[in-house]
Amino acid sequence: MAYPGGQLSEEKVFKDPVHRYIHVRDKVIWDLIGTKEFQRLRRIKQLGTTYLTFHGAEHSRFNHSLGVYEIIRRIIDDVFVGREHWDHSERLLCLCAALLHDLGHGPFSHSFEKVFRLDHEDFTQAIILGDTEVNKVLRRVSADFPKKVAEVIAKTYPNKLVVSLISSQIDADRMDYLLRDAYYTGVSYGNFDMERILRVMRPREDQVVIKRSGMHAVEDYIMSRYQMYWQVYFHPVTRSAEVILTKILHRAKKLYEDGYNFQTKPVHFYSLFAGNVDLQDYLKLDEAVILFYFQQWQDERDEILSDLCRRFVNRHLFKYVEFNPTNEQMTKLIELTSLFKKADIDPEYYLVVDSSSDLPYDFYRPGEEGERLPIYLLMPNGELRELSRESVLVDAISGKRRTDHKLYFPADFIYDFSTKRTTKKKIIEILEG
Amino acid sequence: MAYPGGQLSEEKVFKDPVHRYIHVRDKVIWDLIGTKEFQRLRRIKQLGTTYLTFHGAEHSRFNHSLGVYEIIRRIIDDVFVGREHWDHSERLLCLCAALLHDLGHGPFSHSFEKVFRLDHEDFTQAIILGDTEVNKVLRRVSADFPKKVAEVIAKTYPNKLVVSLISSQIDADRMDYLLRDAYYTGVSYGNFDMERILRVMRPREDQVVIKRSGMHAVEDYIMSRYQMYWQVYFHPVTRSAEVILTKILHRAKKLYEDGYNFQTKPVHFYSLFAGNVDLQDYLKLDEAVILFYFQQWQDERDEILSDLCRRFVNRHLFKYVEFNPTNEQMTKLIELTSLFKKADIDPEYYLVVDSSSDLPYDFYRPGEEGERLPIYLLMPNGELRELSRESVLVDAISGKRRTDHKLYFPADFIYDFSTKRTTKKKIIEILEG
Amino acid sequence: MAYPGGQLSEEKVFKDPVHRYIHVRDKVIWDLIGTKEFQRLRRIKQLGTTYLTFHGAEHSRFNHSLGVYEIIRRIIDDVFVGREHWDHSERLLCLCAALLHDLGHGPFSHSFEKVFRLDHEDFTQAIILGDTEVNKVLRRVSADFPKKVAEVIAKTYPNKLVVSLISSQIDADRMDYLLRDAYYTGVSYGNFDMERILRVMRPREDQVVIKRSGMHAVEDYIMSRYQMYWQVYFHPVTRSAEVILTKILHRAKKLYEDGYNFQTKPVHFYSLFAGNVDLQDYLKLDEAVILFYFQQWQDERDEILSDLCRRFVNRHLFKYVEFNPTNEQMTKLIELTSLFKKADIDPEYYLVVDSSSDLPYDFYRPGEEGERLPIYLLMPNGELRELSRESVLVDAISGKRRTDHKLYFPADFIYDFSTKRTTKKKIIEILEG
Amino acid sequence: MAYPGGQLSEEKVFKDPVHRYIHVRDKVIWDLIGTKEFQRLRRIKQLGTTYLTFHGAEHSRFNHSLGVYEIIRRIIDDVFVGREHWDHSERLLCLCAALLHDLGHGPFSHSFEKVFRLDHEDFTQAIILGDTEVNKVLRRVSADFPKKVAEVIAKTYPNKLVVSLISSQIDADRMDYLLRDAYYTGVSYGNFDMERILRVMRPREDQVVIKRSGMHAVEDYIMSRYQMYWQVYFHPVTRSAEVILTKILHRAKKLYEDGYNFQTKPVHFYSLFAGNVDLQDYLKLDEAVILFYFQQWQDERDEILSDLCRRFVNRHLFKYVEFNPTNEQMTKLIELTSLFKKADIDPEYYLVVDSSSDLPYDFYRPGEEGERLPIYLLMPNGELRELSRESVLVDAISGKRRTDHKLYFPADFIYDFSTKRTTKKKIIEILEG
Repeated sequence: MAYPGGQLSEEKVFKDPVHRYIHVRDKVIWDLIGTKEFQRLRRIKQLGTTYLTFHGAEHSRFNHSLGVYEIIRRIIDDVFVGREHWDHSERLLCLCAALLHDLGHGPFSHSFEKVFRLDHEDFTQAIILGDTEVNKVLRRVSADFPKKVAEVIAKTYPNKLVVSLISSQIDADRMDYLLRDAYYTGVSYGNFDMERILRVMRPREDQVVIKRSGMHAVEDYIMSRYQMYWQVYFHPVTRSAEVILTKILHRAKKLYEDGYNFQTKPVHFYSLFAGNVDLQDYLKLDEAVILFYFQQWQDERDEILSDLCRRFVNRHLFKYVEFNPTNEQMTKLIELTSLFKKADIDPEYYLVVDSSSDLPYDFYRPGEEGERLPIYLLMPNGELRELSRESVLVDAISGKRRTDHKLYFPADFIYDFSTKRTTKKKIIEILEG
Repeated sequence: MAYPGGQLSEEKVFKDPVHRYIHVRDKVIWDLIGTKEFQRLRRIKQLGTTYLTFHGAEHSRFNHSLGVYEIIRRIIDDVFVGREHWDHSERLLCLCAALLHDLGHGPFSHSFEKVFRLDHEDFTQAIILGDTEVNKVLRRVSADFPKKVAEVIAKTYPNKLVVSLISSQIDADRMDYLLRDAYYTGVSYGNFDMERILRVMRPREDQVVIKRSGMHAVEDYIMSRYQMYWQVYFHPVTRSAEVILTKILHRAKKLYEDGYNFQTKPVHFYSLFAGNVDLQDYLKLDEAVILFYFQQWQDERDEILSDLCRRFVNRHLFKYVEFNPTNEQMTKLIELTSLFKKADIDPEYYLVVDSSSDLPYDFYRPGEEGERLPIYLLMPNGELRELSRESVLVDAISGKRRTDHKLYFPADFIYDFSTKRTTKKKIIEILEG
Repeated sequence: MAYPGGQLSEEKVFKDPVHRYIHVRDKVIWDLIGTKEFQRLRRIKQLGTTYLTFHGAEHSRFNHSLGVYEIIRRIIDDVFVGREHWDHSERLLCLCAALLHDLGHGPFSHSFEKVFRLDHEDFTQAIILGDTEVNKVLRRVSADFPKKVAEVIAKTYPNKLVVSLISSQIDADRMDYLLRDAYYTGVSYGNFDMERILRVMRPREDQVVIKRSGMHAVEDYIMSRYQMYWQVYFHPVTRSAEVILTKILHRAKKLYEDGYNFQTKPVHFYSLFAGNVDLQDYLKLDEAVILFYFQQWQDERDEILSDLCRRFVNRHLFKYVEFNPTNEQMTKLIELTSLFKKADIDPEYYLVVDSSSDLPYDFYRPGEEGERLPIYLLMPNGELRELSRESVLVDAISGKRRTDHKLYFPADFIYDFSTKRTTKKKIIEILEG
Repeated sequence: MAYPGGQLSEEKVFKDPVHRYIHVRDKVIWDLIGTKEFQRLRRIKQLGTTYLTFHGAEHSRFNHSLGVYEIIRRIIDDVFVGREHWDHSERLLCLCAALLHDLGHGPFSHSFEKVFRLDHEDFTQAIILGDTEVNKVLRRVSADFPKKVAEVIAKTYPNKLVVSLISSQIDADRMDYLLRDAYYTGVSYGNFDMERILRVMRPREDQVVIKRSGMHAVEDYIMSRYQMYWQVYFHPVTRSAEVILTKILHRAKKLYEDGYNFQTKPVHFYSLFAGNVDLQDYLKLDEAVILFYFQQWQDERDEILSDLCRRFVNRHLFKYVEFNPTNEQMTKLIELTSLFKKADIDPEYYLVVDSSSDLPYDFYRPGEEGERLPIYLLMPNGELRELSRESVLVDAISGKRRTDHKLYFPADFIYDFSTKRTTKKKIIEILEG
């Protein structure tokens, strides 16, 4: 690699609460961090609306991206260098892919992707390969370097070991976000001994494997992941905020399509509504922009839009009850839908079933959809063995999808008996039943 | 107190990384947290632009306000209750004042207050006393309760013990922000043994005092404060961002006054520019709104405004050199000013002297400006003694103001030799000399 | 309770790394801590020989006993007080039982109890009820107070809620030792959110139950326990030290019974060897005494005793291989035994099978041996439900005993080919096979 | 270096709560740790009797020695390697000196050295150079290697940079013990950002220096040291235990010299009493041995010896009052001495003035006794500047010795009015006056 500048004359560091310090020695990494596309990640929260449940979770994707980079740097520089199977000329490629893996994330990705049928991974590719500062920096390494970085992130790069460092069931991405999200939310669930895991990682031809002696640290990591999903990421209050956010986007789109005359025109949304977002439009989106609109729209004349925006901005969220999609419950839902209409509360926006689902760890199911690379243990005799075959704990939760359904609604509307009292009483009866 | 609802049937908790949990038992506190004026603090960062230096420092004033409340709650409920000098009927007043003490902060307060000559404390008063959700909640305690809360925050409340809990040289505000800012930035300087300090706090007629046996914990706190100021709060890179921010506001105001035709009109700034901000205008300001404008203004035709906004948004900050306001240096500054003009770099926006100054601890100087209440130690014999008389460490730094001056400038402009090469070489010579 | 002194005039605190501070307000607790029987716990390590594997694990049972006391104090004073089912007049009884629950532990309990067929619980009873300083302090509460404390610890006290605080599958004992042992060893496995668990504990008629909303914190605790057992408590290197310790005791006893003429007579062991230890003899035993003998015995003429003592004192431990008690392996063991004899290495002391076994959590099996009280969740509707019925994770490991067998031997002897080379080669072949 | 074995095939690690892991790659280090002289450090507490004040402080010198080694290893392998002034062939020498620097410490060093006029540094030299396992291991590196290691520890080694790594005012020894003692006691005072300090250390011809940019981390370290001395190391309760310990040793020596007939003969003390301790005798001493004697001596007929031993073993310590060696106070002391005699309380053992004194940081005073190497900052221009010239904080405490005097006595004896009531009342009057 003949990157102009090569190594920095003095190592640069970022103080980081999770990894203590992020160390940068390569000028290309320093330059990538300085691009405007990477700086934009400062304006996108790592956990979207989770800060409305866990007030500490205000950290950005910029934070996390540096963290993933640092983990990969340590695996390579402290553990892999000099070992069999590891090709050290892939180092810089790994570091860049680690740093940039989340580059395409937009504001409140989860909801935006769902409503506008986007995929942040497409935008990551587009930013790396398109007319951007990031692309210019990468091209200074070599003409085909951007393409290689993009391939690693897209998991199509031929060297599967490199791919597995960035994305597998025990990759640097997951390790960083579990530790980081635990740190900022203040929960203890996400903690595991990353130092130990790094020390027992070994390169193999096609993937990273874990020495058998480190199995318990991996078990602990899998349990952390399981707990973080159910305690933090799928927290019902966060999901309530997501539900409202989704409904705001739906309502704005519908109004726009209906020719509604906005006081604050959704200029930044036009191409989203039209389904033809180009890269430059996309890069203008961040959470400051979205929040600006939501705040302005609190004063729109459309009552649904303004109400939903007020709810989001001021955290007046929907309440929820358990909801299982049995026949009996579905019948109730139909009844509720009709009662909501009767009570002048539009069920399309105010009665929402939301589901969360996670597969804590999966063994190998070749060919099946959503196939995930399992974690392999390196036994003392050199053999590889799939994790769930060795670990009682992991076996117990392996391959078992857990799903949770909840029904969200605006309790304040329902309990406001100044209108439609009888209907609302009926609604309450069903909800509380 | 006859607040409707009184005590919550089940205590509510917020998971907090600094205090583990924030406990809420009083319904009035719960209701205050739910007001839109309080929720607005989620959109204002505790440390303004510091996140551009310490990427972890993305936490909001919402976080901090809950923290101050929790510290006061613990002092009262765990230490003061039942002790002489402590009037437990002031409890709810203290809790409310603690929670609301920063309510009037606007976006990037430091720069905004300086440029537009505002004072966030005036707005705190206005929000508590004006037509707001917060005021409505407080009035439900009693008609004069909002006024009392406002007085405690304004330090005019007759019970000086109550005032000193909220504002003194060792108040809950400072304890929370030191610990919290250290946590989020990841530096270790801000740590001290708050548990110990809380345990040795004692109520006296006019103020909180500290048992002599806890002096070392207080020394440690004073040292933490000293270090945090110079390592974090006055970090020269953060000050560079503040300098740019200030200049953006100046430029926008000037353009507006000159009748410049903005593509994105500074609607939210009109009353700031005019110097007649009313409460409702003010409450619409938050950092999402400001960032929205800055992002839009990157595309304004005015080159200075768009350049400064691009610098802020993409973190292309000014560089700096030491600058001491000696005669010799002032002569250099005058020379630089003229060279900048010659190089077509407007010195009004691009050559800025910035100063930081702190008084780590002050003993008592009655009548002098900026008088600060000293910390008193409660000696075993019941006597009170001013801290710096007992502590060698504190005495060493007491009353000594330390000031630091730096000169900021855009290195990229100066080192761009495509124009005005000779002039720029001269500038560099002086700056590096 | 009319304990002379009652409440201390000023609360006393102990700085504790795990709970930050241990708070003592009751004079009886303060006085108990000051007794010589309680101070003796400073000379008995919490984790026996574990410090030979994890060098940080040098903490004593004194530490842990204070910790259990503090947890119980917080459950009662912060959570239970004023709640239904909780009889606050049991408070002092609970505190005393918590503090004293491990009082009867001797040096290296595990091995001593096994070799000399003792039970530390019998000694705990004896110390509380016998002619001791502890008994004197307790009797000052009331004449029957020692008996009540002893009953709580023996689990025969009528109020089963009180018993379950001190001993159940989620008691203060376990919570303290997991956190404490994790802290001192430096492993992260033992961490769980105790704060959260304390907050969701509720008193019921017969036991402590856990609010359903805290289930995940309990899962995390169960997983911590599981990991600590296999990563720390059953660590094969620690077990190697235990094996040697056991063999020293066996050898000394045998020599004594054979009339061997000790240079350093095992005075402190006489009643242990004779199987008639009385309380005063027992209280003279601590780990300093035992280590003194082992150090002296390094110079005894009996080669086995001196060798084993040198191994223990200087940490020259046995090596190990996996050993499963299958027919095939048992045959090998018999062969090894005979080869050891042939190589002049006494298999009675130098070829040892050691097993560890744990049941991470057990549901309710009334009437079965080793029956353990299950953990019950308090559902929102007031119903109680056994933990493993709600938790997928706990269900997966519930009731499943895991056992591990290893074969220990002195590798240095075997690999010393200066004598019996051929036989030793055969031994190695079998061991490595 | 041609050490047989050279590098270990797989790096070994020790789990350490302070540094997470201790990494060992060099076989010589591994072998040194396995020697019986090094293992002996497990039986000597790092902080002597401090565990009687801070119950967590039960960690051994073994712990600390590994920690110092690890810090030096990280300085060399992560920071110094490849830098100017650093001769990498000194690496192994530094590591060995770091590991072994405290090897000569005996049980309760402070008191033993004072009473028996020993110096642990002499014994460190003797162990390294004498007929020991440690010496054998070191000689396998080269014949003169033990001598070089001894010289580094004795500060006579020609390469002063190497010496300053091991002993200076900011050496690995101090950094480890501050962090470690803070960890085990649970106090927060000892924390500072060691990571940062390591990163800014630079080798110079004669010593380690610190980059100016790291000055604040060094200030924080100096403050930590200051606080740890006064909060932990000189804690008056710990000093009370030391006073008693000293008096036990004095008494036993006197009795021995007087021909007293001990029930438990002080065999291990004979050469100490005689002032001719040889190395083999010395190596048999550890805290288990000493505690064994103290426990036995609780039953000696000599009332002073048995009383003092009971006090030490059961932690019935002396109380204290402030005592300043003014004329007035000295007169009181003389009066007290005579009153103690009158009350049949031997003042030689029961009335003790104890002083503690520390110099938190010293600038350079060449030629003066106790001269200490100052800390130099490496300025951006390459110049070296002594720390207290740059740091206001350090300057404030630099060169200022602080001393504290206390008078210790057995309060229980004094307040026992069953005998000598009038005399004792007078004693109390003077003590409380």
